Amino acid sequence: MKAYKELSKAELIQLKEELEAAYSDAKGKGLSLDMSRGKPAATQLDMTMGIMDALDASSGMKTEAGVDCRNYGLVDGIPEAKKLMGDMIGVPAENVIVCGNASLTIMYDTVSRSMTHGVLGSTPWCKLDKVKFLCPVPGYDRHFGITEHFGIEMINVPMTAEGPDMDMVEKLVSEDAAVKGIWCVPKYSNPQGITYSDETVKRFAALKPAAEDFRIFWDNAYVVHHLYDEKQDELLDILGECEKAGHPDMVYEFCSTSKVSFAGSGIAAVAASKANLEWFKKSLTIQTIGYDKVNQLRHVKYFKDINGIQEHMKKHAALLRPKFEAVLKVLENELGGLQIGSWVEPRGGYFICFEALEGCASQIIAKCKEAGVVLTKAGAPFPYGKDPKDSVIRIAPSFPTPEEMAQATDLFVLCVKLVSVEKLLSAME
Amino acid sequence: MKAYKELSKAELIQLKEELEAAYSDAKGKGLSLDMSRGKPAATQLDMTMGIMDALDASSGMKTEAGVDCRNYGLVDGIPEAKKLMGDMIGVPAENVIVCGNASLTIMYDTVSRSMTHGVLGSTPWCKLDKVKFLCPVPGYDRHFGITEHFGIEMINVPMTAEGPDMDMVEKLVSEDAAVKGIWCVPKYSNPQGITYSDETVKRFAALKPAAEDFRIFWDNAYVVHHLYDEKQDELLDILGECEKAGHPDMVYEFCSTSKVSFAGSGIAAVAASKANLEWFKKSLTIQTIGYDKVNQLRHVKYFKDINGIQEHMKKHAALLRPKFEAVLKVLENELGGLQIGSWVEPRGGYFICFEALEGCASQIIAKCKEAGVVLTKAGAPFPYGKDPKDSVIRIAPSFPTPEEMAQATDLFVLCVKLVSVEKLLSAME
Repeated sequence: MKAYKELSKAELIQLKEELEAAYSDAKGKGLSLDMSRGKPAATQLDMTMGIMDALDASSGMKTEAGVDCRNYGLVDGIPEAKKLMGDMIGVPAENVIVCGNASLTIMYDTVSRSMTHGVLGSTPWCKLDKVKFLCPVPGYDRHFGITEHFGIEMINVPMTAEGPDMDMVEKLVSEDAAVKGIWCVPKYSNPQGITYSDETVKRFAALKPAAEDFRIFWDNAYVVHHLYDEKQDELLDILGECEKAGHPDMVYEFCSTSKVSFAGSGIAAVAASKANLEWFKKSLTIQTIGYDKVNQLRHVKYFKDINGIQEHMKKHAALLRPKFEAVLKVLENELGGLQIGSWVEPRGGYFICFEALEGCASQIIAKCKEAGVVLTKAGAPFPYGKDPKDSVIRIAPSFPTPEEMAQATDLFVLCVKLVSVEKLLSAME
Repeated sequence: MKAYKELSKAELIQLKEELEAAYSDAKGKGLSLDMSRGKPAATQLDMTMGIMDALDASSGMKTEAGVDCRNYGLVDGIPEAKKLMGDMIGVPAENVIVCGNASLTIMYDTVSRSMTHGVLGSTPWCKLDKVKFLCPVPGYDRHFGITEHFGIEMINVPMTAEGPDMDMVEKLVSEDAAVKGIWCVPKYSNPQGITYSDETVKRFAALKPAAEDFRIFWDNAYVVHHLYDEKQDELLDILGECEKAGHPDMVYEFCSTSKVSFAGSGIAAVAASKANLEWFKKSLTIQTIGYDKVNQLRHVKYFKDINGIQEHMKKHAALLRPKFEAVLKVLENELGGLQIGSWVEPRGGYFICFEALEGCASQIIAKCKEAGVVLTKAGAPFPYGKDPKDSVIRIAPSFPTPEEMAQATDLFVLCVKLVSVEKLLSAME
């Protein structure tokens, strides 16, 4: 197909009329579809219902070491759950604390604790004039929500196909002692589906921060969330790399089973050096007598080990893959060669990231909404909800069916075309 | 029996020898008992095992309104759980947010949020030179742990049989704008088992704080934890009283099922005015996408309603009562009339509070430990772990069996006698 930018004004006007007619038809279809959030579908959650039978009234409720999971205690989680979560992200159980149902909460609590108590004895961040975080963009809106909530200044760092722009990261981290952290989704990143290259991970581990309390917030949310059996991304173990590089305390790694078992009722964990974990525990033992160990035990009994998780995730992949493929097929068929948008074909994770022509994302999203398809808000994958180029659109294929995804994407590409044509025409005026 | 203080020096010396011999015998028994924490016994937890069957792989996992509890969402809890927890503490469901597994965590988070974000728009406490909390003593060590962790200055307020000394509370709260809160366990208080009188509750509701961001932290932990069917304490609804008094925002009420279902895997809630709840939610929606709604649903399915909880708590009472009675019987038989200690006979809750002669608590606890009976650390029920009179000892009868409690109390009274005699003798020198 001919690229839009090579079309004449007359051709564009003609095209615009056709697209407007098509859009008018589309609106008449009364679509009502939501591609806005990375929510699992009910059919996917059904695949995990066996976990509800993993424990019953006749179950022994003890850990292997004999601790009664129904009672108080074990603030850092049951050993079996530490092992399971550790194996999931490839770190030793002794470097893991298993918490409640959400890694987001662990991250929030970690930032909150740094505000009130500092990091390993450093000055509490709330006592400092300025605290900054680096934010690879596009990224995860809820990460940026946490730092914004605490008044932390966020600095955009562009993503590349290998991960964040490490030249920029190295420069900012080593020169500015106000830079205290960086948000990372290192595998199948939200929203682009990019996995950090080995070189990127090694450069992270080799960072020489100006601030001794600088930490990498490594949210390994999609570690086992492959879409394919045959082509899977591999990510280097950041904890091991940081230790090798002589910076064992520089990273916190987060993970959960939110998109393995149940989105609201999984278990979450943080992995870090022993010094960091001891520091966490000083607050944790004040904040709780212990997290929900029964749910930890339930997960251990159900999945048994990392192989159980991997087998389970293959079933998820079989369900999710057609949804992703439905979107990618329409994008390729309808937009391939038009040069009005680009996207990365992800091998895992929960999103497809579409990059429209500059200045078009908000309008595309608005047009989709008008015709009954809800997309993630424009700007959401950026700090303060502001996409400087107004071009990034996050597509979340997990919740609707493949057929619905195809329908929704048909409308989406129509809106992309229409808004792009209008953009090109207005540039000619 | 004759009061010890009426004994002659010769009688005391004679008594001391007898007691020392008895203590020496007792040590030989090789006791190993723990009365240190308010932990439910396994037999008590067994009573709730039916909850493990409340949901299974064939369960519909939706709320009455059709929300899938396995998925993200409903940050303030499922409506049915709000109703259940609201009924437990006698407040409307609309004033309730149901959270995770521990009310302690809600309290910690509430203080933490006040530090970083203030209260309903007030200056964040971390920006103030001084923040103070009033602490009725003896009280709950973990409350004091939270305020100490955040560097909040704690001021002891003596307990009376009706609740905290309200003259002192009124004076401090109305005169000092640095006083931002007070910790209360208003029903079957930890550790004394005292329930605040109606007058006390009304005086709380009528407080005129110097600080607009002053809050009553009303930890209604033992609201349904009666020991007897026939003699139960009643507590006025503080939320209603505060509203009537024109101070609807002045109180946060906390509760949980930690000692109703499972100590580590219950559900917890906070109740407050709508303005306070909206303020909470500004942070909660950043901190989490939602708490564990499956566990909320599990509790609703199992208990059904407040009657279900009350019937369940009668079974707990039948198990706990003999443990309390075992302690109280030994105390009465062995110490009655000796005037070397006093205690309140609680009608509910988890503790018996023993007040020894001034300066004796640490030694009694040390002697018990030496002979194999672990009690809560001396000073624990006080801010900074310091009992100014070194006289309060918290006894937690819930974990051992009644027979073990009787054994342990036999040793305890022996240690009380011995230390008291030594104390009286040393005063004669």
